[in-house]
Amino acid sequence: MRATVMYGPGDVRVEERREPRVVEPTDAIVRLSATCICGSDLWPYRGLEDGQWPVPMGHEYVGVVEEVGGEVTTIRPGQFVIGSFIASDNTCEICRAGYQTSCLRGEPVGGAQAEVLRVPLADGTLVATPGVPPDDLVPSLLAASDVLGTGWFGAVAAEVGPGKTVAVVGDGAVGLLAVLAAGRLGAERIIAMSRHRPRQELAREFGATDVVAERGDEGVARIEDLTDGPGAHSVVEAVGTQESMMQAVRATRPGGHVGYVGVPHGVELPGQELFFSHVHLHGGPAPVRRFLPELIELIYDRAIEPGRVFDLELPLDRAAEGYRAMDERRAIKVLLRP
Amino acid sequence: MRATVMYGPGDVRVEERREPRVVEPTDAIVRLSATCICGSDLWPYRGLEDGQWPVPMGHEYVGVVEEVGGEVTTIRPGQFVIGSFIASDNTCEICRAGYQTSCLRGEPVGGAQAEVLRVPLADGTLVATPGVPPDDLVPSLLAASDVLGTGWFGAVAAEVGPGKTVAVVGDGAVGLLAVLAAGRLGAERIIAMSRHRPRQELAREFGATDVVAERGDEGVARIEDLTDGPGAHSVVEAVGTQESMMQAVRATRPGGHVGYVGVPHGVELPGQELFFSHVHLHGGPAPVRRFLPELIELIYDRAIEPGRVFDLELPLDRAAEGYRAMDERRAIKVLLRP
Repeated sequence: MRATVMYGPGDVRVEERREPRVVEPTDAIVRLSATCICGSDLWPYRGLEDGQWPVPMGHEYVGVVEEVGGEVTTIRPGQFVIGSFIASDNTCEICRAGYQTSCLRGEPVGGAQAEVLRVPLADGTLVATPGVPPDDLVPSLLAASDVLGTGWFGAVAAEVGPGKTVAVVGDGAVGLLAVLAAGRLGAERIIAMSRHRPRQELAREFGATDVVAERGDEGVARIEDLTDGPGAHSVVEAVGTQESMMQAVRATRPGGHVGYVGVPHGVELPGQELFFSHVHLHGGPAPVRRFLPELIELIYDRAIEPGRVFDLELPLDRAAEGYRAMDERRAIKVLLRP
Repeated sequence: MRATVMYGPGDVRVEERREPRVVEPTDAIVRLSATCICGSDLWPYRGLEDGQWPVPMGHEYVGVVEEVGGEVTTIRPGQFVIGSFIASDNTCEICRAGYQTSCLRGEPVGGAQAEVLRVPLADGTLVATPGVPPDDLVPSLLAASDVLGTGWFGAVAAEVGPGKTVAVVGDGAVGLLAVLAAGRLGAERIIAMSRHRPRQELAREFGATDVVAERGDEGVARIEDLTDGPGAHSVVEAVGTQESMMQAVRATRPGGHVGYVGVPHGVELPGQELFFSHVHLHGGPAPVRRFLPELIELIYDRAIEPGRVFDLELPLDRAAEGYRAMDERRAIKVLLRP
C-alpha cells in the first residue's frame, strides 16, 4: 500500500509499505476514505521535535472496517468508523472519567496518512457512523478525528458556557474549531486572536464576535479593553509556545479558566505568576473519544461543518506538497485522499 | 503600640510604633485579641525573599473594632471580627466570583503582629462573629484568618469531594488544615505526606486515613501503590517548592485536580509534562473571605477545632522566639498575644 513517511525535517515521502494486518485480537484494519496533515506534524517537519527516522506519519482517519480480530465484539467489517490518535479501551477508570487519551491500556495510533491502518483496541477506540456517510460529510467527520475534538476539549477544559467571554489563542484548525465549539457551548462573546485575513474570516463564520490581531502583551491589553478590565472568563490555548501560553494565562481573569491543547514545546510556566494569576489550568492530549458520539451527531444533523478547515485537498501521493503548504501557512489544513 | 518588625533575614524585633488611625473612610481600626506567625513569614526570615527592610510583619488577626471610617456601614465598634490578608470590597465582579484575593480594589493587609491594626475596605474584608467569643474559640477563629481558609481553598481547588482519594503535600499548618478540610468536604481517603511524628499524629486526628513519609518520586510511588496505580483524585500542594509542586502533579491521576496554595518560590512548571499529566491545576492566594462565614459557623458549632495547629503561644514581645521555633520546626504555628 501507499503510505507517508518522514525521513527527517522537511523530508516527506509517499512510498510502498507492507499493508498492516491484525496483530492483536482486539485490532481492527480500516481502509481509509480520507486522512490529513496535523499542525503537530509540523513540529518534526520543522526540526523542532526529534523523530526516530524514518517515521510513518498521520493519526487522523475515517474509513471502512475491513477486518477485525477475534476479540472485537462491537465493531464489524463494513462499518464506516472514526477513531482518535490514542487507542483506548474505554472501560478503565481513567477512560470512564473521560480521559481516554490517558487510558491505562492506551497506545498511540500512527501511520494514518496511508491507504490502510491498523487500529488497536478497536471496540474502545472506534465509533461507527449511522451508515456510510454522503461524500460531503467526510471532511467534517475526518475533522472530528482530531482537530474538532481537540478544539472542543480546549473549550470544555476552559469551562466555556453561557454568558461567558471566551478568547482563543491560535488560528490554526484547532483554534478555529475551538471558536466553533465555544459557540455551540453557548459563549456570549468569542474573541479570535488571529492576524491572517482568511483565518479571521473563517473564525467569524464559525462564530467569533471579535477578532484581535495583536499578540503577546499587546494582545492581552486588547482582551482587557474588550472585557472592561479583568480579562476573559475562558481562554483556549491552541499553539503550544511560551508566548502563546503566557498570552493565554494573562488574558484570563482571576478565577477564570485556561484550556490548553497546543502541545507545549519549550514551555516553562513561572510558578509564582501562575499562582497570583488565580487562573484554572487544564488541558493535554484531547480525549477525542469522549466527544465523538456527540460530534458525529452534530455533523450528521448538519448543525456544524468543521470540515471547512480543509482548504486544500490532495491525493495521498502528493502529501509532501501538503506539508509544504501547511508549513508556509498557505493552507490551514490539508486533506489527503488515499 | 508594640509591633513586630523584620529588619532583615533572621532579625525580628518588637518595638514601639505609632498606632494606626483611620486614613480612608472605608477603614476600620481593630484592637487585636490574637495574631500569629505564618509559614510564609519564614521565606524572608530565611533570606529566600527580598523585603523592603524594615518590614512590619503579620497578616493574620482577630480582635475588637475600635473605630471605623465615615463610609463604613456594616462593621461597628465593639464587634469581634476576623479578616484576611488581602482587603477586598467584596462587591466587584471578581469578588462576586469568589476570588476576593484578586479584588479589583484589593490591597494587602500588613503589620498584624501588633496591638492595633488598620484594615482597609472594612465592610468587604471583615466578618463579625455572633458575639465576643469565649476565650477557647479564639485560636480557632484566628486560624480561620489564613491557614484554615488557605487549607480549605486548597481542598476546594483540588475538587475534594465524596468518594475521592486526596493526598496532601506539606505538613505545615496549611497542609494539616487541608487534611481537616478534606474530611469535612467528604473525602473517602486522605493521605497526609509527612515525616514528622507529631504532625503525622495531628494529621490523623484531623482525619488522615494514611500517612506517607516518603518524598519526591518515592512519595509518588507510594501514592500510586495506595491507589492501585493511577494516583489520587485530588492533591493539595501546601509547600511551594519545585519538588513539592512536581510531587503534587505526579501524584495526581489523569483528569484529577491539584489545588496549590503554597506560595511558589523558584518554581518552573515544565509545560510538556504538565500537558501529558492531564491534571487540572488551580490555586493561588486563598480567597479566605469566601469561606469565612461558613468557617466561623463550624468553629462556633465546635464541629472543627483548627486552633489545634497552634502548639506554642507567646506574648507579642517574644515574637522573635516564635520565629526561631517555627524556623527550626520546633513549633507548627505560633500564636502571639498582644
